[in-house]
Amino acid sequence: MITAEIITIGTEIISGQITDTNTPYIAQKLTEKGIQVLFQTSVGDDKELLKSALKIARDRTNLIITTGGLGPTANDITREAVSEFFDIPLVQDKNAFVRIQKYFGGQHRNVPDAQTKQTLIPEGALALHNDNGTAAGFALNCGNTEIVCLPGVPREMQSMLNKYLEIYDSRNKSEGGCKLTRDLHTFGISEPDVDSQMKAYTGIEEPKIMTLVHDGIVTINIRATAKTRESAIKLLDRIEQDIRKELGSAVFGVGDETLEYAVYTLLKKYNKTIAVAESCTGGLVSDKLTNIPGISEFFLEGVVVYSNKAKVDVLGVSGEFIQKYGAVSPQVARAMAEGIKKRSSADIGVGITGIAGPTGATKEKPVGLVYIAVAVDNDVEVKECRFRGSRIDIKTFSANTALNMVRLILL
Amino acid sequence: MITAEIITIGTEIISGQITDTNTPYIAQKLTEKGIQVLFQTSVGDDKELLKSALKIARDRTNLIITTGGLGPTANDITREAVSEFFDIPLVQDKNAFVRIQKYFGGQHRNVPDAQTKQTLIPEGALALHNDNGTAAGFALNCGNTEIVCLPGVPREMQSMLNKYLEIYDSRNKSEGGCKLTRDLHTFGISEPDVDSQMKAYTGIEEPKIMTLVHDGIVTINIRATAKTRESAIKLLDRIEQDIRKELGSAVFGVGDETLEYAVYTLLKKYNKTIAVAESCTGGLVSDKLTNIPGISEFFLEGVVVYSNKAKVDVLGVSGEFIQKYGAVSPQVARAMAEGIKKRSSADIGVGITGIAGPTGATKEKPVGLVYIAVAVDNDVEVKECRFRGSRIDIKTFSANTALNMVRLILL
Repeated sequence: MITAEIITIGTEIISGQITDTNTPYIAQKLTEKGIQVLFQTSVGDDKELLKSALKIARDRTNLIITTGGLGPTANDITREAVSEFFDIPLVQDKNAFVRIQKYFGGQHRNVPDAQTKQTLIPEGALALHNDNGTAAGFALNCGNTEIVCLPGVPREMQSMLNKYLEIYDSRNKSEGGCKLTRDLHTFGISEPDVDSQMKAYTGIEEPKIMTLVHDGIVTINIRATAKTRESAIKLLDRIEQDIRKELGSAVFGVGDETLEYAVYTLLKKYNKTIAVAESCTGGLVSDKLTNIPGISEFFLEGVVVYSNKAKVDVLGVSGEFIQKYGAVSPQVARAMAEGIKKRSSADIGVGITGIAGPTGATKEKPVGLVYIAVAVDNDVEVKECRFRGSRIDIKTFSANTALNMVRLILL
Repeated sequence: MITAEIITIGTEIISGQITDTNTPYIAQKLTEKGIQVLFQTSVGDDKELLKSALKIARDRTNLIITTGGLGPTANDITREAVSEFFDIPLVQDKNAFVRIQKYFGGQHRNVPDAQTKQTLIPEGALALHNDNGTAAGFALNCGNTEIVCLPGVPREMQSMLNKYLEIYDSRNKSEGGCKLTRDLHTFGISEPDVDSQMKAYTGIEEPKIMTLVHDGIVTINIRATAKTRESAIKLLDRIEQDIRKELGSAVFGVGDETLEYAVYTLLKKYNKTIAVAESCTGGLVSDKLTNIPGISEFFLEGVVVYSNKAKVDVLGVSGEFIQKYGAVSPQVARAMAEGIKKRSSADIGVGITGIAGPTGATKEKPVGLVYIAVAVDNDVEVKECRFRGSRIDIKTFSANTALNMVRLILL
């Protein structure tokens, strides 16, 4: 089995200024290929420290993937460190130089000296071209170790990693043994409940099932190994079916499918339009829905009616009504959902009102109390929720709960 | 100088299922204390691999901080690995046991066996109590190395790390030398422009200045060391003043202040109200503004007018007008800003229309073309922007640009 170490290079990472998102991306991709990631290391822009990290990585894994340190500045030390550590001189990659010439206007004299440094790769290495920037990457095979150096800019890194993995695939086709993973996302069911409903898989190493929680979403990660890719996919399909049978409509998506994407596919399937009136979520539901390309056909209108005046003016909720029940009440949530549905002529209207905090709470109406209403045809469903956490947590839980209510009603 | 390594433990990290946010948090806190983080390592729930990582870390740094692997399950192997590696037996921390008893209802027999594992710490270690959960942490001093083991749940980890750092401070008070950092955020000025305006600091190691770009925001990170905390703060103040003098109104915030927070403080200062009409940003501006506690006094209303019908109905933009100029045009952006201002009686109206992609573009109107209008009193400012990137990038750049326009107008 191929084992790997991911090394991310950069002072902005080691000092905690940025969160390294390259490492999880690479780890996922390698894991999908059946490559076992054993270690992840980060180190600053320091050539000697990087060389010491390379030594350790070479001694404990077969495949090293690095990101960062391939740019034109003096702080970019990855190519020199690799060259010195493996004792292989750097040479210019002609294709990379032609690309960089084009980038700087097509004339040799226009390429700044510092920039040409980016076209150097170790002699004999496989060049990995960068379609989104100027830093060239490379894969270098040294005995039992292969080292792949990629830039730190996520967009550049991702496309170059995928290029490398295609090459890796074509090389390893015959070896057999394919490990695949799949994520199933659920909403409205707690992690312990998910766990207890999947007892059949508890404690089993192969196939392995893990759960994770994020923003109220419980994700079930399934891992399966088989001789071929096809049989691994079949195995995942079977486990997915089992889980869907147990958990039913709580499962809303696979892989990178979000709740808003699930709502979008259902709106499309049933050709229904939607409009949203938000108070405490402040536009988050509209924002999430409009992240989906193609939603404009189905999402007619969103309003953020923060003030009572706006609730009256925009949605036609009467002022006395708000006075009587309070702005945070099931009655007002219902009136908001009905108001926006009527106003926009949408098939579905959503109304959300609550107390996101940290202020605005009373003894009867604590921070986290949220009412969500969904109006369809002549029916309105209203849900009372009591969330905990920060203002942003409460906004997020409320938005996800509202999207899930719409999803279940469409189902 | 104290050097450190952060080790995060967990199969969900090593396989890329989750993004490790503990490491940057810890790295920032240590860097602020003048502790130099040299390496960051992640490893799965594997005792032997963890022990090998502990060996490497002990050989190259003085302080090791680990997160994860302190829970009650068989996969939680951190305490055993530390005990075996340093050859120190585990003993029960009485206080932790009393806490866990309380947690499980106050009676000894109610504490499940697996849970009592969480109260074990190496003999002679300093216990770090967990106010937010059941897993006890500890700090163990072994010769030249101190190892601090914390749980992986961010909320638990953070409060326990801060407890440890207080102890660290009280120990190191007499040593002197305080290293502090400060972030200044700018908008509307490119990273090279920021760099060239701060030439006085280029290449200088102390104080050190670094720049980072995220969502169009250029952040300037300043690091300064001085004998006392007070003199380090004075030094940071002086550098901040210098930078503000150079960059003027491009600087919008310090530390964790966001563009929306800057807008909020100005709305409050001048007692102005705002309302927002969004098309391509789909509610993101409203969402950002409503993340700020207290905004409800100033943010009257937001509308997401995705369809042309909504632009007509909600904002009173005439249909012929949209026909004539196109929905994505400076004229429609202006009409949206004026429409929402009038409708909501706010002091400031914002209108945003553009093409977030990936579809909807024409030859004349490419993906990323966005018009943003801000109406105040009888004036309207309209800006044409051409952004690049994904749908979500374009939404984010547009929202930040709109917030920055409002900020500059309020200034």
